Amino acid sequence: MSGPLRIGLFGCGTVGGGVVDILTSRVGYLRSVGVDATVAKVCVRNTKNPALVALLQGHATTVSSNYDDILEDPSINCVIELMGGVTDAKDVVFKAIAKNKHVITANKALIANFMPDITALLTAHPSVRFGYEASVCGGIPIIHTLQSSYTGDGLTEIAGIMNGTTNYMLSKMEKEGASYDAVLKEAQDLGFAEANPSADVDGFDVQAKIAILAKLGFGVHVPPATIPTTGITRIKTVDFEYAKLMGATIKLLGIAKATSADAVAVFVSPVIVPTTNVIGTVHGASNIVNIVSANCINGAYVGQGAGRFPTANSVVNDIVRLGQGVVPSPAFGSTREQVKIENDYAGRFYVRVRLNDGLGIVRSIGTHAEEAGISIDSILQLPITDRNNVDTVVTTDVAKVSQVQRMCDALAKLSFVQEPPLFLPIL
Amino acid sequence: MSGPLRIGLFGCGTVGGGVVDILTSRVGYLRSVGVDATVAKVCVRNTKNPALVALLQGHATTVSSNYDDILEDPSINCVIELMGGVTDAKDVVFKAIAKNKHVITANKALIANFMPDITALLTAHPSVRFGYEASVCGGIPIIHTLQSSYTGDGLTEIAGIMNGTTNYMLSKMEKEGASYDAVLKEAQDLGFAEANPSADVDGFDVQAKIAILAKLGFGVHVPPATIPTTGITRIKTVDFEYAKLMGATIKLLGIAKATSADAVAVFVSPVIVPTTNVIGTVHGASNIVNIVSANCINGAYVGQGAGRFPTANSVVNDIVRLGQGVVPSPAFGSTREQVKIENDYAGRFYVRVRLNDGLGIVRSIGTHAEEAGISIDSILQLPITDRNNVDTVVTTDVAKVSQVQRMCDALAKLSFVQEPPLFLPIL
Repeated sequence: MSGPLRIGLFGCGTVGGGVVDILTSRVGYLRSVGVDATVAKVCVRNTKNPALVALLQGHATTVSSNYDDILEDPSINCVIELMGGVTDAKDVVFKAIAKNKHVITANKALIANFMPDITALLTAHPSVRFGYEASVCGGIPIIHTLQSSYTGDGLTEIAGIMNGTTNYMLSKMEKEGASYDAVLKEAQDLGFAEANPSADVDGFDVQAKIAILAKLGFGVHVPPATIPTTGITRIKTVDFEYAKLMGATIKLLGIAKATSADAVAVFVSPVIVPTTNVIGTVHGASNIVNIVSANCINGAYVGQGAGRFPTANSVVNDIVRLGQGVVPSPAFGSTREQVKIENDYAGRFYVRVRLNDGLGIVRSIGTHAEEAGISIDSILQLPITDRNNVDTVVTTDVAKVSQVQRMCDALAKLSFVQEPPLFLPIL
Repeated sequence: MSGPLRIGLFGCGTVGGGVVDILTSRVGYLRSVGVDATVAKVCVRNTKNPALVALLQGHATTVSSNYDDILEDPSINCVIELMGGVTDAKDVVFKAIAKNKHVITANKALIANFMPDITALLTAHPSVRFGYEASVCGGIPIIHTLQSSYTGDGLTEIAGIMNGTTNYMLSKMEKEGASYDAVLKEAQDLGFAEANPSADVDGFDVQAKIAILAKLGFGVHVPPATIPTTGITRIKTVDFEYAKLMGATIKLLGIAKATSADAVAVFVSPVIVPTTNVIGTVHGASNIVNIVSANCINGAYVGQGAGRFPTANSVVNDIVRLGQGVVPSPAFGSTREQVKIENDYAGRFYVRVRLNDGLGIVRSIGTHAEEAGISIDSILQLPITDRNNVDTVVTTDVAKVSQVQRMCDALAKLSFVQEPPLFLPIL
């Protein structure tokens, strides 16, 4: 145990309020396991917010809107950053470390983008511990699991459903045959999706998360902006019909997988997932991270990806580990300089081509596959209802992304092909 | 980091050999994260075993068959016990703690039966850390997860498939409609089941495991022998047919669940599990532990339940945590004296009655249900093929185990009922 924690909390909304709630309701039990943690100060924009005032009633917590009231207070030994964003939050986190305060944050964008800088700062301030369990998959303890349960193992793949909004949408499309637009509207009406849904549906949320897991699992920092990312906006009901023919479903996954002993592919894409795979069984707003490794073969971690208490619980886990002195170091795992990013990975692919029906189409697709060096595994064609809008699917044998891209580029130029073909990896 | 670990290993068969393999192949990486662990001595019955000799070739490891060569060696600061059993293994573990050596063990029976004694010993030797990740669900880091990710949470249920042999058998019965006897013979032929399969099929293996998880999750030590335990020997193909009618399957589960704020039910039984529940999606030799809690709502941990490398990986995880100084204490979680065992829990039940077809049966079942205070939810009857061997199923509304038992006892006495009815909880 490292002594009492006096916490300065930046941001006290949904998750921050949950943290205060849990620390209050569990105070006796936490003390019984050696954790003495108090939220001494809270920093928020609006100190008069009625919900905040109600939350802190009866607490001796100081409320301020001045960052330095926490950062310059030597009695605060732990900063929890729940503001989000990468501007002020970055200043707060960096300054807290420089002041030798422990940091706990749920800020995936900050971590994914600034891991090397944070690592350098932590190296210069070796007494500081950095917890970020809440940054990936809210209620799933995936960060700590990767930090402490795979050290003697060799990972070959991390693949996860890490965005509840899009998993909810895809599950609805699969189950109800609803269109993308309809499920997006429903998700927005229910408050699951933002008015501007891009962070979710374009895969950017998952991009930051897989960057963090890739570092922990493979020792390589991947700047999020460099991760090939395909969202779910082009997925149609017909894709689920074809997936079903294949005994599969479609999930938006963040994937980091070894392509050789010293290389890893990291990408975000909707993926054709066999329903026999545990990833294919996770529906609705739940998240899952599945880890393939040499020793453990297959391990899956399923839970709530977001929400007040699941996420707050992960923040509290970091507080507890800090209080018990059990936060593993280095924070982002050992760095392996020799590991390279190799995003032109090999796999099997699903390629959907929307076209006007006509003569010679199969031959033409076959020709372009052959020219790209791709062996076709199957051609799937549901009964045609509209000859001017035919969706034909080709599945490939193992091929590289670049080969599939080349075939799709060639197909897109054909007169009877209506739009650039959609291609998805098959898990 | 707590300095170099000089390990004395008791037992070097499947799992022990895996531990030596992993420590050897990962030595560089382990050092990079601050873990310096050497298997200095091995204690085995047959020091000339060719597999052992081959394994240790090139290692400076001393081999002995004398326990004291390790226990009395002050240079050994960590004992790994992989002998199994509760006689010699108990002596070794207890003596190691008394000598202030850290202990890592995979011995579920030893832990489940002697938790209070081990706790007392650890209290008297506060420098000693006790790791037992490998004792429950081989490759799933469920011990560490319960130790370090639910401290701020309140558990309401732990339910797990924790025996791969019986899950393999049940999965086969479900998928292929094979009989219990046929799948048992196949499992034995494949080496999955022992010649004497009792520990698996009668649920005793799960009994010890749920005792360990119940202590971690609810703070209460449950002597394994006191846990109501029903195995899978009475499960028939027809039960899967009825389960299917209910949109469910059958899994052998160890369950610990809160029945009130201060009471918990702990039992082992085949359970009717809806196929929409994540537990119902885990087939074959895989294990899963599903945790229901106030903050995290639902978290599931899936992986290999046994095998050389999954289990050895868990032992290595304990070594790593020991080397990094991150083994949580108290080892078995905080003890909550006020929590009582209340095994007469309430739930919905599946009751299968084997009978000779005749008049007045439904009325008779209805009468005995009513007399036991049980409300019937449904009566299921597959088409009758043999009027002398009719399996009828009743599902109940929420009732207590004692009520269901009373109804079954009464039904068993009826002339047309052939055997004591089988009753299974519905998850």
